[in-house]
Amino acid sequence: MAEPIFPRLALIGIGLIGSSIAHAARRAGATSHIAISTRTPQTLKRAEELGLGQSYHLDPAEAAYGADCIIASVPVGASEAVAKAIAPALKPGAIVSDVGSVKQSVIRQMAPHLPAGVHFVPAHPVAGTEYSGPDAGFAALFDRRWCILTPPEGTDPAAVETLGKFWTALGANVETMSPNHHDLVLAITSHVPHLIAYNIVGTAADLETVTQSEVMKFSAGGFRDFTRIAASDPTMWRDVFLHNREAVLEMLGRFNEDLASLQRAIRWGDGEALFNLFTRTRAIRRGIVAAGQETAAPDFGRQPTKT
Amino acid sequence: MAEPIFPRLALIGIGLIGSSIAHAARRAGATSHIAISTRTPQTLKRAEELGLGQSYHLDPAEAAYGADCIIASVPVGASEAVAKAIAPALKPGAIVSDVGSVKQSVIRQMAPHLPAGVHFVPAHPVAGTEYSGPDAGFAALFDRRWCILTPPEGTDPAAVETLGKFWTALGANVETMSPNHHDLVLAITSHVPHLIAYNIVGTAADLETVTQSEVMKFSAGGFRDFTRIAASDPTMWRDVFLHNREAVLEMLGRFNEDLASLQRAIRWGDGEALFNLFTRTRAIRRGIVAAGQETAAPDFGRQPTKT
Repeated sequence: MAEPIFPRLALIGIGLIGSSIAHAARRAGATSHIAISTRTPQTLKRAEELGLGQSYHLDPAEAAYGADCIIASVPVGASEAVAKAIAPALKPGAIVSDVGSVKQSVIRQMAPHLPAGVHFVPAHPVAGTEYSGPDAGFAALFDRRWCILTPPEGTDPAAVETLGKFWTALGANVETMSPNHHDLVLAITSHVPHLIAYNIVGTAADLETVTQSEVMKFSAGGFRDFTRIAASDPTMWRDVFLHNREAVLEMLGRFNEDLASLQRAIRWGDGEALFNLFTRTRAIRRGIVAAGQETAAPDFGRQPTKT
Repeated sequence: MAEPIFPRLALIGIGLIGSSIAHAARRAGATSHIAISTRTPQTLKRAEELGLGQSYHLDPAEAAYGADCIIASVPVGASEAVAKAIAPALKPGAIVSDVGSVKQSVIRQMAPHLPAGVHFVPAHPVAGTEYSGPDAGFAALFDRRWCILTPPEGTDPAAVETLGKFWTALGANVETMSPNHHDLVLAITSHVPHLIAYNIVGTAADLETVTQSEVMKFSAGGFRDFTRIAASDPTMWRDVFLHNREAVLEMLGRFNEDLASLQRAIRWGDGEALFNLFTRTRAIRRGIVAAGQETAAPDFGRQPTKT
């Protein structure tokens, strides 16, 4: 049996992503000891009941002590507190990483607190579901999804390579890019989509002319799709928007410009403009299916619901 | 064996919805003869190869001749042409219906051409997938979905009841509402969601700072969900927006107002406003799942993709 990539792995935060890392790392034999730390005693107890690790700690420093790799899986706004808490416990040569959906802010928050001799390799596995907490995780979450590494300039390439091997072992494809570019890419592929999903669900809930009951009953016309990502963890997403403000506002500006133009096409009956856009967008989905990032099954392969 | 609800059923248009009606009506034993008409010889031939009906006609009047119920399943902009074409062939007491996602316009287009003694009961089954054409249909499409009937004032209640029975036999729940209210409800539950999905896919495709390849690779962060409905039939959706202009613009105005407020919350770092909205929207999804209109399986129960 091969040596595990990280004999001791510390997971700080054990929600959907943290617990999925635990499942996937065990599946891969990528570690022999998972030390888990989380903020509340209830969640820590639940992680233990689920058998997600080998040791359980309320103090993140205790979990990080002696670990070969420490992964923070917390809302991005909590990154600095984690870095401060674990810094004194880190052993030389340890790799510190995270899973945050925003990278420049996480680097600004964590890097200043990490001691010399420790490798900081921020990461972002682009995967998830609308569920949260330690019960929501599963080993296959990262299979064939992309994990983006955004090492700051000057990071030891060997540490980047080792963390890349770890994510590959967990089932992911690995790509490296600059933190700045990551934040732009994710603003359009993830953050703005979440924002407009949250927004339309809010708009629908607040109408006076259409009842909430009607919105729910007739949601199969398209609306229900948006409610999935609008059911994602509120704390995580609040932090994403607060910490990737510039890129989100930039992409949102583009979205608004384009929407204003569509709105005008509707008002003035410009069917050709509508038809052209609606034809162009089909190709993007075909590309996503071809890239292995989406099922070709109609309606996501969603099964009929029961009543 | 019970008498079929409509011994002869004419389907004008045999795309996703028309072909699903054919499958579901056969499954239910709701008809003994399906007469199919569609605009192009190729599609008509394909419908025949698939065995969707008992007779096949390029002339809609031929299909409608002697039919107990005639259902137009065409882009809403083609409704008037269908009404004109079938009018001379309609037998007294026949029920004429449709499946359009807009009701006031369809009524304005069709009602003036239909002869006295024929019952016009517009309908809208709120169901679909992102696929189009006669191969895309399946019998279970309407199961537990809502079919909305919008009879104009003065419509014979017996005809409304008969059409309701037909849709119930096809697996749907049936509700009646005014055409005006229908168009408002669908603007928020279907039309505006499609519009913003088309829009964001277009925005993402046009960026210079992020490549299309990156958009596709990292789409699992949320974006890919939007590409499904943005892959819907371009002609059908062009017509929806052109024919439900007022309700769409009204709902879009509300969406834009709310989005401007969210944008401001991001710019000014108002985490509380974001958190409150993101918490409220979770409840709507729970309601949709409870209403039997959505699966509770994480990520729509979407299966992992292969590469």
